[in-house]
Amino acid sequence: MKTFRLIGALDIGGTKILAGLIDQQGRLLARRRVETGATGGAEEVVARAGATLNELLCEVGADRAALQAIGCSVPGPLDSERGVVIFSPNLGWRNVPFVELLRRQFDVPIIIEDDARCAALGEARMGAARGAQCAVYVTISTGIGSGVVIGGRLYQGAHGCAGEVGHMTLDSKGPMCACGNRGCFEALASGSAIAARAREAIMRGNETLLARYEPTQLTANEVMQAAAAGDALAKQIIETAGEYIGIGLAAVACAFDPEVIVVGGGAASGNGLLARARETFAARAIPPLDALVSIVPAALGGESALWGAALLVSQGQEVSSV
Amino acid sequence: MKTFRLIGALDIGGTKILAGLIDQQGRLLARRRVETGATGGAEEVVARAGATLNELLCEVGADRAALQAIGCSVPGPLDSERGVVIFSPNLGWRNVPFVELLRRQFDVPIIIEDDARCAALGEARMGAARGAQCAVYVTISTGIGSGVVIGGRLYQGAHGCAGEVGHMTLDSKGPMCACGNRGCFEALASGSAIAARAREAIMRGNETLLARYEPTQLTANEVMQAAAAGDALAKQIIETAGEYIGIGLAAVACAFDPEVIVVGGGAASGNGLLARARETFAARAIPPLDALVSIVPAALGGESALWGAALLVSQGQEVSSV
Repeated sequence: MKTFRLIGALDIGGTKILAGLIDQQGRLLARRRVETGATGGAEEVVARAGATLNELLCEVGADRAALQAIGCSVPGPLDSERGVVIFSPNLGWRNVPFVELLRRQFDVPIIIEDDARCAALGEARMGAARGAQCAVYVTISTGIGSGVVIGGRLYQGAHGCAGEVGHMTLDSKGPMCACGNRGCFEALASGSAIAARAREAIMRGNETLLARYEPTQLTANEVMQAAAAGDALAKQIIETAGEYIGIGLAAVACAFDPEVIVVGGGAASGNGLLARARETFAARAIPPLDALVSIVPAALGGESALWGAALLVSQGQEVSSV
Repeated sequence: MKTFRLIGALDIGGTKILAGLIDQQGRLLARRRVETGATGGAEEVVARAGATLNELLCEVGADRAALQAIGCSVPGPLDSERGVVIFSPNLGWRNVPFVELLRRQFDVPIIIEDDARCAALGEARMGAARGAQCAVYVTISTGIGSGVVIGGRLYQGAHGCAGEVGHMTLDSKGPMCACGNRGCFEALASGSAIAARAREAIMRGNETLLARYEPTQLTANEVMQAAAAGDALAKQIIETAGEYIGIGLAAVACAFDPEVIVVGGGAASGNGLLARARETFAARAIPPLDALVSIVPAALGGESALWGAALLVSQGQEVSSV
């Protein structure tokens, strides 16, 4: 066995777990992706994540004593001080004592943080916002989450809830949101919102390629594919979502005035959503922010949150509570 | 003449100039309010402000050498690094080299900052948000401005534009805003928005006490008075504005997760607006912020910005650029 001092990083998602080992020079020595397979519940998922870290230690020829600490990205909301995942719809978790479960396998410091915040930290330190003192990462996926980096550090807010930008109202009389409010950014521009709009159109009998799907099975992916195939209704729905993304990002820019807004999740992939969002942002954000704030796709691909999880630990002293 | 080390503070507004002298212990030794009388232009206004400071020095028995520095609150947008007021509709100023003009009278360091930010700093250090690490001050007046305090310091953003919360969209298809966007917080909930809604109703011939006013002369004050007198239309307009204030403050809470939001300007005075805003906030802000973020009126009355201007200087090292 060689002598190592390594940081473990975990990115726990609804469908996959990413695990990585980072050395003191910040190099990713090994990484592995496994299925989450959450049917057995939280204990099973955490055990699998830990086992994957052990396999990586083996792979690089390090013993368990080499592992100094573990940083974990988990879909929130969570209580990072207590190490508990309060609620994670993608994983079907409620009040899961994540840190306690993982510590059964590793007696080292373990830090957990919300996945969007981890991705924000990863992108701000190593990715599309590298070097920015102030950056906001917004993930447009099933829901809309964000992480805010100020002065190079994650900004948590007074109650650990900063950056809930998916629940800023963009249309006060708009559709109901799962949070109980109406017309939230998330209710208008997320993957769920795209799918909901398509379902409504099908129910109304609109002519569309999407009519061949069982409405309840329809997701944003099918709408994006139909739009790419030239379906007029699907194109209109993607256009509308792109406009709301632009309006929402303009609100984010008004609040934080970041150097850059990094967009991750499905919207960052090349389907025209981001282009429409940028046009709308330029038309609606207040000068001079319309010209000064750049909107860029995430640069670390699926690894933003994994890197952020590692950075939580290795630069933990720089993660402020305010 | 006694030996003093004093900080001068100026709050320049469209109708009045407030001047104050603060000693090293942070005590306000003297204050004076004079009319702005802006007809002679910026040079005249700055000269009057400087003369008022000189009168205060006289009043406390200090000579000019006692003055160490001057902090100034000015309606923005402004370029605080260059000391230039870029545009101030209330004063009718464009590209006024404020610091250069004031330095003709005082050869000391002079700092200028936007009035809402000064008020935020004043309220966070001495007023309704005293002791808060994270607080947002929102002024609901002719327009809507804000100042954000993070970690006890003014947060400026990457381009000095942070906290433009008046231009977050709350109704994407709402009324045009002066900024060029539609449905901004300011276009829906400011004093101007209240007056505009009343004018439209009068034009439509609605029955109201407000019909006795010349529509172009009507301001939010008359609408508030009519609402207090029981006028149904005026009450409805104030109710609507209060709801939008609540929706806007909920968006502010989502972004920053502050300990407290301090509301200043006309809305903070007891006319029911703030009560309606609080109800709406509780109904629409995302849990747990609906319960955790308190909404309170400014505590320093008309002196929030004057105190903030003094604090800019005396605690200048704590005012970060990011």
